[in-house]
Amino acid sequence: MKFGNLYQSKKSRARLGRIHTPHGIIETPNFVPVGTNACVKSLDSQILEHLGVQLMFCNTYHLMLQPGSKVVQEAGGLHKFMNRGMPIITDSGGFQVFSLAYGSVASELKSQGTKKTDGSVLKITEDGVLFRSYRDGAKIFLTAESSIQAQKELGADIMISFDELPPYHMKQQDLSKSLDRTHRWEKRSLDEHLRNTNNQALYAVVHGGVDVELRKKSCAYLGDLPFDGFGIGGSLGKNRPEMLQMLQEVMPFVPKERPNHLLGIGDLTSIDACIPLGVDTFDSAFPTRAARHGSILMPGNQHFNITRGIYAKHFRPLVDDCRCYTCQNHTAAYIHHLFKAHELTALSLTSIHNLHIMIQIMAQYRQQIADGTI
Amino acid sequence: MKFGNLYQSKKSRARLGRIHTPHGIIETPNFVPVGTNACVKSLDSQILEHLGVQLMFCNTYHLMLQPGSKVVQEAGGLHKFMNRGMPIITDSGGFQVFSLAYGSVASELKSQGTKKTDGSVLKITEDGVLFRSYRDGAKIFLTAESSIQAQKELGADIMISFDELPPYHMKQQDLSKSLDRTHRWEKRSLDEHLRNTNNQALYAVVHGGVDVELRKKSCAYLGDLPFDGFGIGGSLGKNRPEMLQMLQEVMPFVPKERPNHLLGIGDLTSIDACIPLGVDTFDSAFPTRAARHGSILMPGNQHFNITRGIYAKHFRPLVDDCRCYTCQNHTAAYIHHLFKAHELTALSLTSIHNLHIMIQIMAQYRQQIADGTI
Repeated sequence: MKFGNLYQSKKSRARLGRIHTPHGIIETPNFVPVGTNACVKSLDSQILEHLGVQLMFCNTYHLMLQPGSKVVQEAGGLHKFMNRGMPIITDSGGFQVFSLAYGSVASELKSQGTKKTDGSVLKITEDGVLFRSYRDGAKIFLTAESSIQAQKELGADIMISFDELPPYHMKQQDLSKSLDRTHRWEKRSLDEHLRNTNNQALYAVVHGGVDVELRKKSCAYLGDLPFDGFGIGGSLGKNRPEMLQMLQEVMPFVPKERPNHLLGIGDLTSIDACIPLGVDTFDSAFPTRAARHGSILMPGNQHFNITRGIYAKHFRPLVDDCRCYTCQNHTAAYIHHLFKAHELTALSLTSIHNLHIMIQIMAQYRQQIADGTI
Repeated sequence: MKFGNLYQSKKSRARLGRIHTPHGIIETPNFVPVGTNACVKSLDSQILEHLGVQLMFCNTYHLMLQPGSKVVQEAGGLHKFMNRGMPIITDSGGFQVFSLAYGSVASELKSQGTKKTDGSVLKITEDGVLFRSYRDGAKIFLTAESSIQAQKELGADIMISFDELPPYHMKQQDLSKSLDRTHRWEKRSLDEHLRNTNNQALYAVVHGGVDVELRKKSCAYLGDLPFDGFGIGGSLGKNRPEMLQMLQEVMPFVPKERPNHLLGIGDLTSIDACIPLGVDTFDSAFPTRAARHGSILMPGNQHFNITRGIYAKHFRPLVDDCRCYTCQNHTAAYIHHLFKAHELTALSLTSIHNLHIMIQIMAQYRQQIADGTI
């Protein structure tokens, strides 16, 4: 993997880059749709490539359990398994495992909800995490080494180091200990990767929770190691303003000569605020999940719900002048009808549209950086 | 509409034909996928056209309730509403209405199951059927005239006359009375159609249940009227052998110079047996419903279930040498995985494959008739 920083804005930390991978180039800033099970829901790889999705995010945890990373390896890796010719990134599996321990990680990272465990995580030790498969009840021991091994079997262009996801509600002292252990796990991930380097790249994950000093310490420690890029993970605050405040303080310490990725954040409001802070890539299931609930994206961070009655006779595209397959071929009235009639086709058509809009919006951000307006 | 009988087999009643419609030609014998809600489940019109689906079946009953035939009319008719450039056929709505009265019509026609009513059908009179919408509880009175009016609003290439679906368990005397009323309803359908002929065609439906003499009487009565074609409807027996026996006796009395359509039957075994009896077109939801349950069609009336464990590592297409989009782009192992991971994409990919196989099989039947082997 190679990263080229093409242009650094003079008005903000925003920057234009290119990540060169074995399966092609990712222009940054960019949005990365999540295809948990080696599939962006309701679409297939050919549609994604046609849309111009330059990087796709797959979840190692889910793929370890189904079909199993060894099956994907036998298929010739994720690209061949799902017939994708463009870049793929996999996570470490840690996020999902710890979400079993803490309930919804998304809620927990924002300090919402209550701590709960369904008993799936059996033990967390210095070595790793012992958990129970939700599919067949089998005990699985996930470590830095086994995560990297699984990710090598999956064969994505970019892998992510194994980390601990500490809950938001953690005392500073425990958070510091957790960070140290995460650093040891990440170093072990790197060592495991370097034992058998191939064409894959490995990102570290910057942690430190809501403690700015710990975050800076994490940037310094990980930045000294030969990782190919940096994820920003863990709890960044209770809400978006807190997250932005934290990123404002931390982004200057994330190594500039390598790409960075904000893990699990990809709503339009956050993207809009994070690009000037220097974030390169964002992953989220948001645009496709929204699509499946009838929420239609429009240029300019607008959206509307196609299931509303006012669209029953809207015999025009979802978005006028939109050049996506859906808007070129179908009307809002027809898609409204498909939702009312509970037709699965509605979910594919709206997912195509929303991803097209996301891709278009990201291209516009890149243009604005080039134009010097961000 | 114009029908050209291109070739009559010398070995059987099988024949080659061409139905010329305002939206193109339907080669017969042919299979007609059902898209109840103006949508073949999990696909869209562009995919159907690309597959070469020459005729698509839509259900007037469902479309009357959602989005309403007037909305479709405002859209410019079904073709524009769903962006389909090729021929469409709609039914009268009667089948679904009577299925509310008798439980599952499919079961009832075969004399399976028990008679039941959910109270949706409120009254059946000489004039028509009063029923309650399952969507909003509104009372709807469906008559020969209102069915044809709705079908004219929908604007399909081929419409079907309004008929009564008598249950299998009907005394001969009642069946005869039902047939007479169905004939009056069909005549009224024709009169309503002729009041305002347009580019649409109208099929009659031959009835008479499991009584051969009533079936012949129906052929004679309807054949004397200027219908454009003939559906064969109602109960044809308890099982496939009874149905084939009945068709063997009745098909010689169905007018030959006009096309015929076997309503609601489209499994491969029935098609194989009915083509030599002279049936032109078949509609069924079978190949797409089978696909959604993981049942994969193969040439030669074979099938297998992709969810079986033996396909987990089958890194080849569903069917070797199959030229469908799915087999050209994806492996059986990947589709197996998508089913195991409950990904909707699985349903689209298998539906595409099964329809491709149906279309290929029908083309082969036409070739065999032309070759003189059927």
